[in-house]
Order: sequence, then C-alpha cells, then structure tokens
Amino acid sequence: MTFDYPARRARLAELLPAHEVPALLVTSPVNVQYLTGLASSNAAVLVKTDGTALLATDNRYIDKARTLGVPSVEAADVAGRLAAPGAGIEAACMSVATYHRLGRQLGGEGLVPLGPVVEVLRAVKDDGELELLRTACEITDQAFADISGNIREGLSERDLARLLDNRMTELGADKPAFDTIVAAGENGAIPHHAPTDRELRIGDLVTMDFGARYHGYHADMTRTVCLGPPAGWQREIYDLVAEAQRAGRHALAPGAGAREVDAAARSVIGNAGHADHFRHGLGHGVGLEIHEEPFLGPSRTGRLKDRVPITVEPGVYLPGRGGVRIEDTLVTREDGPELFTKTTKELLVL
Amino acid sequence: MTFDYPARRARLAELLPAHEVPALLVTSPVNVQYLTGLASSNAAVLVKTDGTALLATDNRYIDKARTLGVPSVEAADVAGRLAAPGAGIEAACMSVATYHRLGRQLGGEGLVPLGPVVEVLRAVKDDGELELLRTACEITDQAFADISGNIREGLSERDLARLLDNRMTELGADKPAFDTIVAAGENGAIPHHAPTDRELRIGDLVTMDFGARYHGYHADMTRTVCLGPPAGWQREIYDLVAEAQRAGRHALAPGAGAREVDAAARSVIGNAGHADHFRHGLGHGVGLEIHEEPFLGPSRTGRLKDRVPITVEPGVYLPGRGGVRIEDTLVTREDGPELFTKTTKELLVL
Repeated sequence: MTFDYPARRARLAELLPAHEVPALLVTSPVNVQYLTGLASSNAAVLVKTDGTALLATDNRYIDKARTLGVPSVEAADVAGRLAAPGAGIEAACMSVATYHRLGRQLGGEGLVPLGPVVEVLRAVKDDGELELLRTACEITDQAFADISGNIREGLSERDLARLLDNRMTELGADKPAFDTIVAAGENGAIPHHAPTDRELRIGDLVTMDFGARYHGYHADMTRTVCLGPPAGWQREIYDLVAEAQRAGRHALAPGAGAREVDAAARSVIGNAGHADHFRHGLGHGVGLEIHEEPFLGPSRTGRLKDRVPITVEPGVYLPGRGGVRIEDTLVTREDGPELFTKTTKELLVL
Repeated sequence: MTFDYPARRARLAELLPAHEVPALLVTSPVNVQYLTGLASSNAAVLVKTDGTALLATDNRYIDKARTLGVPSVEAADVAGRLAAPGAGIEAACMSVATYHRLGRQLGGEGLVPLGPVVEVLRAVKDDGELELLRTACEITDQAFADISGNIREGLSERDLARLLDNRMTELGADKPAFDTIVAAGENGAIPHHAPTDRELRIGDLVTMDFGARYHGYHADMTRTVCLGPPAGWQREIYDLVAEAQRAGRHALAPGAGAREVDAAARSVIGNAGHADHFRHGLGHGVGLEIHEEPFLGPSRTGRLKDRVPITVEPGVYLPGRGGVRIEDTLVTREDGPELFTKTTKELLVL
C-alpha cells in the first residue's frame, strides 16, 4: 500500500497561511509518517507554504528516508537541524525541553506553538487508508469468532486476552492495536481494567475491548458476553447499552456535532437513571493512532466530516457488580455510517 | 510485588532543594507509577520538599488511586489541578501546549522546567525491581530456547517474530517489551528493521532483538544465528561483535563513565576497521521503560552506579550483506556485573 505523500504535504501547505506561519516543523512521529511514509522514532519534517519539504532523521533511518522522494538530511538532533525562525511547531507533541533548546538556538524570532494541524488533515481518510482499516477490523472480527468457543469457566482474564492477541497476529495483524482489556464480573465495572489472573465464572459478564493493528492502522471493538444465563440486571444494562450504542451510531453523519453525537447515546443512558455510570467519552477517531481526532464527548466541539473512521462505545458500569460496553469502529459517509466491525451485538450467552 | 512508594517519594523530596524548587509536578506516566503505584494514562503527582504528595487522576482511575495510601483528587485536567507557583516540571515530558496553558492559569510566578529528576532515582533499582526484571529476562531466555528448534528455511521474519512473541506471553510475560525485531540476510544490516514476509534462507545471518515485559519491567536481548554453515565474513564479524560485547560487559562497574564503557566495546570494532559499521550507542538502562537512564554512547556523560540494569549491544552492519548484534541485559554490581539474560553467545548454526 502506497500513499500520495506529496498531495498530503500540499494539503498541509495550503493550511499554513491561516495559521500565519511560513512553515510547520512536524515532530510528531506519526505525523512525519503520514506526510512522508517514514516510520521512525526520531525524524522531523519541515513543510513550507510553497509545498516544499525537508526531512531529517538519524543514521538508523536515513537510508530508508532517501528512498521516499523527499529531500532528506541526516542529523541526530532532527528538530534542531530543521528549526527555522517563525516556523510553527506542534505544541501538543513538542516537549518544553526541546522548545526551549530550539528557542536558544534560534534566538530573536522564535517558534510559533500551534494546536492540531496535521491531525485535522489525518481525520479524513483516503481510500487506501480505509482499505487498511477495513482489513484491521476484519481481523478483529475474525479473531473474536475464532476464539469465542474457548470462552469458558476457569479461563483467566489474562488467558482470554492472550487468545485474542495471538489469534489477531496469526491472522496477519502487525500486533494488537492497544493493550487488550478483558474484564470479568466485578472487574467489568472498571472501564480500563487490565487483565488479571481472575478466572471467569458462571454468572459473569465478560467485557473484551481489543483490536488489530494492520499496516499501522488501528481497529477498536468491544463486546460484552455473559457466562451462563443473564440475571435480570445484566440483561437490563446490556439492552440499555445496546440501545445507546445504536442511537450513537445513527447520529454519526458528516456535519454532526461531536457533542450532539455523544448526547444521542448519553441521553438514552441518562434517561434510564444511569448517567453516573457512564462517565467517559462516547468515542474517538482511529487511524495511525488508536486515539486521534475527532473525539466525541459532552465538552467536545467541532463537527464530523465525511470519511472519518470513529468509534462509538457507550458503557454502563456498576461498581462492585460489573459492567457492559459495546463498541464498534465505523466510518462516516454521506449516505449513512459504514460499519467496519461486524461482530453481532446480540448478547452472547456462553 | 509491592514497593515502598513513600520511601521513593522521600528520596525525591530530598533532591528538590538542589533544584531550587519547593515541589515537583510529576506528569510522566511512568514516573507517577514509580512514585505512587498508579499505572494510568492520565495522572500527575505533586511531591513537596517536606515529602508530602498529592495525586490527581481522572474518573477512570480514581478508585484505584484511593487505595494507594496517598491523598488523591479526581480531575480531568490533572496537571492543572496540581500546578503550583514555582513548582518544577518535567521538561522532557510536558508538552509546550500544557506548559503554556498552566503558565496562563498560574500567571505571575511560573513553573520551573527541570531535566531528569525522577529518572535519575529510577536508574538504581531496589530488590523487588531486580526480581521482576530477572523474571522478565528468564522468560526471554526460555522463549528463545523453546522456539529455536523452529528457526528454519522458509519461515518468514514475521512468523519468527510471532513465535517469539507468543511464547513470551505463554510463559507469563505481560506482553513483548517492544516491537520484536527479526532481520534476515541483507535486512540484518538495518539495526531497527521491522519484520517482513522475507523468508529465511540458507546462508542467512538472522538477528532477533526481543524481550519480555513482566509486571511492567522490560527485558532486552539480541542474538544473531546462522542458517547453515557461516561464510568467512559472517564468522569474522560474529567473532568481532562477540569480542566487543565481552569488552563492554567487562567495563560495566559502579563508577565507570558512560562514555568509557561505550569506548571499551567500540574500540574493538574500530580497531578491526569497522567503526563506520557500528553507529548506534552501546546500550541503555532498562526498567519501567525499555529505554531509560543511563545511556551508553560516545557523547554520553555521567557515571554508572551500583544496581543499575543496563544493556550492552554492539553490532556490525554491512549494507546489502547483513549484520550481527549481540545484546544482554546486565546489572551493575560492586563485585562485577550480573548477567540477567543467559542464552549462549556462541554462534548458533541452525
């Protein structure tokens, strides 16, 4: 899979005048990768308003950099090599230490801290990116289908996480897109629970939040299953979360406000008296990062665009008892959101 | 495994007067974990010169935080909740965006950017940490032993990486300590090669750089093996790297300079005419991070202390042909370094 990196840099260049800078010093590794194709832990690229660019990286990556069709220089201090007076910098990524060091180096006219610029471009995906993300989601679905027969009493949360992780890499994932969450019984009340040796028991709700990374693109899916027949309260919160998730999915559309989409799902949960039991945002963009622009939440601003992959993941968490979360990865489309993770959302009773 | 977090905070408090700050606002997630036991993606802790501390985290982690014996407050903006006039901040970790936001919030007397403080404390490990790291290295050794019989012609780099990763997690690792490197034949000339579908062939040198993470502690080991009998040049660079690695290991001692240890290994390679074929640092500390203080390299300053886990990993990389790297994780001790990764360094011919 190859991308049109010059076109991406050209789109970035067009944005710079609005930020009143002659150039942007891009130091976020994933943004450098997005603009040049170079995946590394130490690189920077300076993109100017005329669309020209200069890439800097160290001796570990310079040979690769020179194959990418963008002028490249070798430097250990990549930001120092490219810093130019008045250039914009990525304020959410650059450290205070680097910023002060570059300021001393430049003297006089300093650097201009900017908010998200490349991140805003990245939110809207091109066909090649959607293809990779689609595959990442297919691997995620398939891994769940392949291991679901193994979810049984006595298996530990860690064992189950390992089954999912191994199956995803066997199916071609680069690796898990993030640390897989498996939360059984009372642990399900902790939204970001890390798997333990807690064994699955009959009567547990078991939440699995996982995804495959494929060629750098991150899938994200959560399913909650029940070991044995669900109790009344389990069925009740499951149905409630499923209804909220459906409402959130249906609210996804180009032009929809990030806050409104969140509210569409949150109000379902709030109306049922569980507002205090759903205290995280509804979702987030996915792509080269597992959490990226845009974000859906009560205090988020901005509107969705077309072709934006995003998660919808409401939950209800009852401290000491358990929880349910249901999450899909979808893509906004003019004719309605496209579902990328296709595993059933019926309550699976295992 | 539990640690004496109050003692760690007390040691930190003792360092603050030398930095001329009344408190340190710790925002590096791994440093917060080191000082409080809270592993999270959004927490901060303010430690004052009198040894008192206040921990802030968001609603996802606050319940856990309240079990840790340190006063805790819930906040979404954790740094904003704790920022105090004149407090030190971790300049290598805090972003420019956060720094400016906190500066506006505080007005007047701002924050004081500091270099590594907690990182310097973290370099010297206590018994509990060494025990976890020892186990991480044992898992790493065992995984290599268990899969080495499967290294054969036709296996891809990706397949081999997956074998290592799966075996480490089966043996109890949290997960791989970093993205496993497998580099066959000509790819071995790229120090940070990411595994591809390139299949192993007779005549290849195959470099594997991998390690287990166990209870948060990171092992790091590299071995290069040969598929079929080694050619003269392969045997030659293998023996050279092994000799350099031995020299580096023997130079490890409390009090030794970071530059001198690097030079002990580098001079062996340089004397053989391969200086240009070994262009990365000799090693790095390991612990809660895979790369942490101290670092060994030609331009590194500082001296090693006792009980510092560190890697020694020289390599020789011949562009277009292949490479060799040999790496161990060791711990400095007064009576000589203790080897944690124990896999043989004889050239394995498979």
